[in-house]
Amino acid sequence: MQGDRVAIPDRDSAPAVAAAGALGTGRAVARGCACDVASEARLQAALDEAVADLGPVDGLVSHAGFQHVAPLESFPTEVFRRMLDVMQVAPFVVLKHVLPSATPRGWGRVIHMASINGLVGLTKVTALEAAPYGVTVNALCPGKVDTTLVRGQLADLAARSGMPFERVLEAVIHPFVPQRRLLAPEDLAASALFLTSEAAVGISGQAVVTDSGYTAQ
Amino acid sequence: MQGDRVAIPDRDSAPAVAAAGALGTGRAVARGCACDVASEARLQAALDEAVADLGPVDGLVSHAGFQHVAPLESFPTEVFRRMLDVMQVAPFVVLKHVLPSATPRGWGRVIHMASINGLVGLTKVTALEAAPYGVTVNALCPGKVDTTLVRGQLADLAARSGMPFERVLEAVIHPFVPQRRLLAPEDLAASALFLTSEAAVGISGQAVVTDSGYTAQ
Amino acid sequence: MQGDRVAIPDRDSAPAVAAAGALGTGRAVARGCACDVASEARLQAALDEAVADLGPVDGLVSHAGFQHVAPLESFPTEVFRRMLDVMQVAPFVVLKHVLPSATPRGWGRVIHMASINGLVGLTKVTALEAAPYGVTVNALCPGKVDTTLVRGQLADLAARSGMPFERVLEAVIHPFVPQRRLLAPEDLAASALFLTSEAAVGISGQAVVTDSGYTAQ
Amino acid sequence: MQGDRVAIPDRDSAPAVAAAGALGTGRAVARGCACDVASEARLQAALDEAVADLGPVDGLVSHAGFQHVAPLESFPTEVFRRMLDVMQVAPFVVLKHVLPSATPRGWGRVIHMASINGLVGLTKVTALEAAPYGVTVNALCPGKVDTTLVRGQLADLAARSGMPFERVLEAVIHPFVPQRRLLAPEDLAASALFLTSEAAVGISGQAVVTDSGYTAQ
Repeated sequence: MQGDRVAIPDRDSAPAVAAAGALGTGRAVARGCACDVASEARLQAALDEAVADLGPVDGLVSHAGFQHVAPLESFPTEVFRRMLDVMQVAPFVVLKHVLPSATPRGWGRVIHMASINGLVGLTKVTALEAAPYGVTVNALCPGKVDTTLVRGQLADLAARSGMPFERVLEAVIHPFVPQRRLLAPEDLAASALFLTSEAAVGISGQAVVTDSGYTAQ
Repeated sequence: MQGDRVAIPDRDSAPAVAAAGALGTGRAVARGCACDVASEARLQAALDEAVADLGPVDGLVSHAGFQHVAPLESFPTEVFRRMLDVMQVAPFVVLKHVLPSATPRGWGRVIHMASINGLVGLTKVTALEAAPYGVTVNALCPGKVDTTLVRGQLADLAARSGMPFERVLEAVIHPFVPQRRLLAPEDLAASALFLTSEAAVGISGQAVVTDSGYTAQ
Repeated sequence: MQGDRVAIPDRDSAPAVAAAGALGTGRAVARGCACDVASEARLQAALDEAVADLGPVDGLVSHAGFQHVAPLESFPTEVFRRMLDVMQVAPFVVLKHVLPSATPRGWGRVIHMASINGLVGLTKVTALEAAPYGVTVNALCPGKVDTTLVRGQLADLAARSGMPFERVLEAVIHPFVPQRRLLAPEDLAASALFLTSEAAVGISGQAVVTDSGYTAQ
Repeated sequence: MQGDRVAIPDRDSAPAVAAAGALGTGRAVARGCACDVASEARLQAALDEAVADLGPVDGLVSHAGFQHVAPLESFPTEVFRRMLDVMQVAPFVVLKHVLPSATPRGWGRVIHMASINGLVGLTKVTALEAAPYGVTVNALCPGKVDTTLVRGQLADLAARSGMPFERVLEAVIHPFVPQRRLLAPEDLAASALFLTSEAAVGISGQAVVTDSGYTAQ
């Protein structure tokens, strides 16, 4: 965090390396690596390599996730279980391996990107466990963000309907978001940077919602 | 906000002037003023003077409040009504007068210090109203803060019980707060500064809890 | 509650008497009375008369409320203050006068119809105060209910737009309510009856949402 | 539900059969069966048998759970994963198999006993999916209940400390529960019966907390 040394694990190596490169040498020593977060052995290996390479973990952002939309009737149980693996077991495993090294140093900032309720429970429990050691654990709950995935879905919709992209945005996003826009990734980054800062030591065990007013409706 | 020009209204002039002075001339042009926030005319006058003196309002922090502890049976209705005046009507009135000048400028940051639930409703409603104009409205919910009031109560308790101050803190505060400490006023200031920053534009209509893990229990 | 003796105060006597009559003599001894809930003296007088007439209060449902829709800029402060009087001060006052007679009997059920957040705070605080005495205090939070007021607004809209009433319902209500219907008043009554029953003794200090799935979205 | 025909699956057959027997022949046709809820095949078999035996499912209460207390550092990942299997995958699987038969009949009541946050997400999503069909899905969140497990823990504590049982209750339970008592299983049953009743059709997608005032603190 705070612009110095960042490790970026991903299922595929290329985007992780690209993202690490984009951070720039002047501002950060980044490190991309491939890692299937559903495998505890690989998660642990990626973590060990990152620590060997970049030093102990000051901040941890768990943000792996994926989406599967289907009626409950035809929702494959193995997909549901994999969702839990990626979005609940993986943050549990990483935190389990990071926390013991953070507590003796009296510093740590953990953020769970939490689009699902399950992580809020883990966040609270571990926040309480970590509280006496200067380590905070929070969930960061995003609204609709302007990601490659979302932009691609909207572009598909534009192509299929023959409407310009901006018009699609006005039709399917704006009516549901008070600020009438997709969140920029930077909006989430701002909240993450704040939560990982020295100053935010008093915030722990919270779900910090950054969603352009969506849930205020 | 952000260290430039701050107006500090208070029921008594002296502490407001002292607080304004403490901000220092190098860092801020501060301005203390006496103002009973339960009077709409005085609130409006204080606001008009501050605008004439310091320029338009970029950030607004409503934080007036007071405490009255009594069993419901003997809780005076006029005290309850005055609580609502100070803690709900006053933020409503100030926001009502500030919002019209913020929306055309497309910028504004409003924070309600909210120890009571009533302000959360006002926060959400006005966040939705202000969302299209780049103005955010949030509630900031503190835990137990190390204020003059709280420190005085603990000192009284120490004097009455013959226990050292630190021991009183350990007995009546630590067991109930996961981080085992009173929040520093700076902890709240950090959250307020973040919420009033450019970067926090994506957070609106939220209750941001800064409480050393208290509500995670 | 539970079908025996009900007092119904209202600002106007006629609807209160009509509602009391509608409960029928076989099922209830009802009693209508005019009462401006914003006046503590009148509230207390109505309460005293009801107790003299019908016996001590076993269940209390505070449901007075009114709506005023306006941009914040032109929202009259006196209307906001009257809202607080009707929707926060009145429930406070009634509860203050009812609680002392409920606690020695070890029985009581209080429900705050809570479309505003302010009552949730009062509900929690008084639930804690009443908990050792077998008295429960809860908020009941309704979604969009099929009331005379709402039906009139929809009928106006139907008349102005030339659409049949059912079509208006489909256009302005159904898309926003998962169950695709207005709540029946009976849906709220069911929750209120349950909360005032012997069996619901374990529920206190809660906001019980009865809204056809609205807030699950 | 509502006192007619109940199937009770359990990991061990004996307690399930005993519980089924305790419901009595006059009031219920009960059916105990052994079933490891972490196995989809066994869950489905138990469900099929229950339907063949007792008819289609009107009400479904998912309440399997277990506790494992350990510091995060030494919390076995396989235990965490089994928790998710029992407390999130099992309710998902049962609901997935029950919902298709409930929707065409336009009736259904699903309750997730939810001591973990993960189920609240599943509850909301499936409540929305089921809303048009007269099927409600809610979470029921208990406080500290007087179960065999809890009573055994308190009895152990009494034996180890030499304090009478009632004294242990006063020392480790009462200070943390506003109603100063353990919840009776009947308190939870009351909420479950209400939520599965015809009258509660307007409540869906909610977390109904029945906890003697615990979370109001």
